[in-house]
Amino acid sequence: MSKTITLRRRVEAAGRRTAEALRRFFRRRGVFVVNLIGSPGSGKTSLLEAAAPRLRGKAAVIQGDLETDEDKRRIERVGLPAYQINTISGCHLDVGQIRRAVGQLPLDNARFLFIENVGNLVCPASFEIGEDIKVAVVSVTEGDDKPAKYPVALRVAAAMVLTKTDLLPHLRCDIERMERDAVVANPELRVFRCSARTGEGVDALLDWLEEVAARR
Amino acid sequence: MSKTITLRRRVEAAGRRTAEALRRFFRRRGVFVVNLIGSPGSGKTSLLEAAAPRLRGKAAVIQGDLETDEDKRRIERVGLPAYQINTISGCHLDVGQIRRAVGQLPLDNARFLFIENVGNLVCPASFEIGEDIKVAVVSVTEGDDKPAKYPVALRVAAAMVLTKTDLLPHLRCDIERMERDAVVANPELRVFRCSARTGEGVDALLDWLEEVAARR
Repeated sequence: MSKTITLRRRVEAAGRRTAEALRRFFRRRGVFVVNLIGSPGSGKTSLLEAAAPRLRGKAAVIQGDLETDEDKRRIERVGLPAYQINTISGCHLDVGQIRRAVGQLPLDNARFLFIENVGNLVCPASFEIGEDIKVAVVSVTEGDDKPAKYPVALRVAAAMVLTKTDLLPHLRCDIERMERDAVVANPELRVFRCSARTGEGVDALLDWLEEVAARR
Repeated sequence: MSKTITLRRRVEAAGRRTAEALRRFFRRRGVFVVNLIGSPGSGKTSLLEAAAPRLRGKAAVIQGDLETDEDKRRIERVGLPAYQINTISGCHLDVGQIRRAVGQLPLDNARFLFIENVGNLVCPASFEIGEDIKVAVVSVTEGDDKPAKYPVALRVAAAMVLTKTDLLPHLRCDIERMERDAVVANPELRVFRCSARTGEGVDALLDWLEEVAARR
């Protein structure tokens, strides 16, 4: 077992070095990288679709899913360049996949690169893939106990986006409890309430991202 | 790297042997074990709450979450014995955790043991924890593309439960597409539509589970 652990640590250290090299590559090009983490169906792609009108011409997207290129096609339909990674059974994107994807995307005018991780609120939190910040996406339809029960992603994220707020009238969901528990997990966390359907909160989120990217 | 892989294979083989021993233990006692797999907030606990009136006196529950014992308390409130496992950052339950939990639960009159895995539609699909069957839980609020994009759990499951159907009138969700894609992933899969709120489909699911348990 100790050999496994030693070798795993070496692999992890190599991953962190590659992530750091990738981060420097993005910085030189002025690309701010956002790693979107959330369960399958938390609304990550819909959020990018809703944000597309303001992102067009200055953002690119990498999509991670087990299978299909549906998300790539959705993103291209709203006018953003996209690259799909299929992990088949892999539960998170790794830095090698991002390094290979980057060569396939037009980043020359990109101010932002959004990496939509594999739908999974747990594992992607543990991996650096060259991003500047992680943003956790949690839908209100998942229930108001989720930030308390799954705080791992929130601890490493700069922001949490609560999505699908248009459905709140039909749910028993105490959104304020979600916000309170999230800030207990990470007192530095910024919280946004968004609906991709109505557009609520999308501008506030993008304003904040531009501000953070400018400060870097 | 090859040493890592060899050692990992040995650990996996040991896990499978423990799972097989645990399965034999449950069989001797006449306990049918259901491993519930689904994203955080897919409605696994709510489904058990809705099924509790028929399960009382003949079922026990093991809860897996990163943190909190909320689910244990919810299950106990509806009259079923429950044991909570907190994985902290672990993305799935493992067979050692189940073995230790079993000693803490009253299984003498139990016909069923439900193991609610950590909220994650990907990783728990790869691990045997002594169960007779896996049941995948997917909520309609996650979007109708989820069975196509996350087929891993469906391939190893005996049934898929589509939850939160009471919300369908408020969603753009083609539930028939979910069913079609799921059966493409696994032609043997049984599909149930359930609402924990209205009770829709819960009896049909329990009838089927009793039938499958009796056939074993």
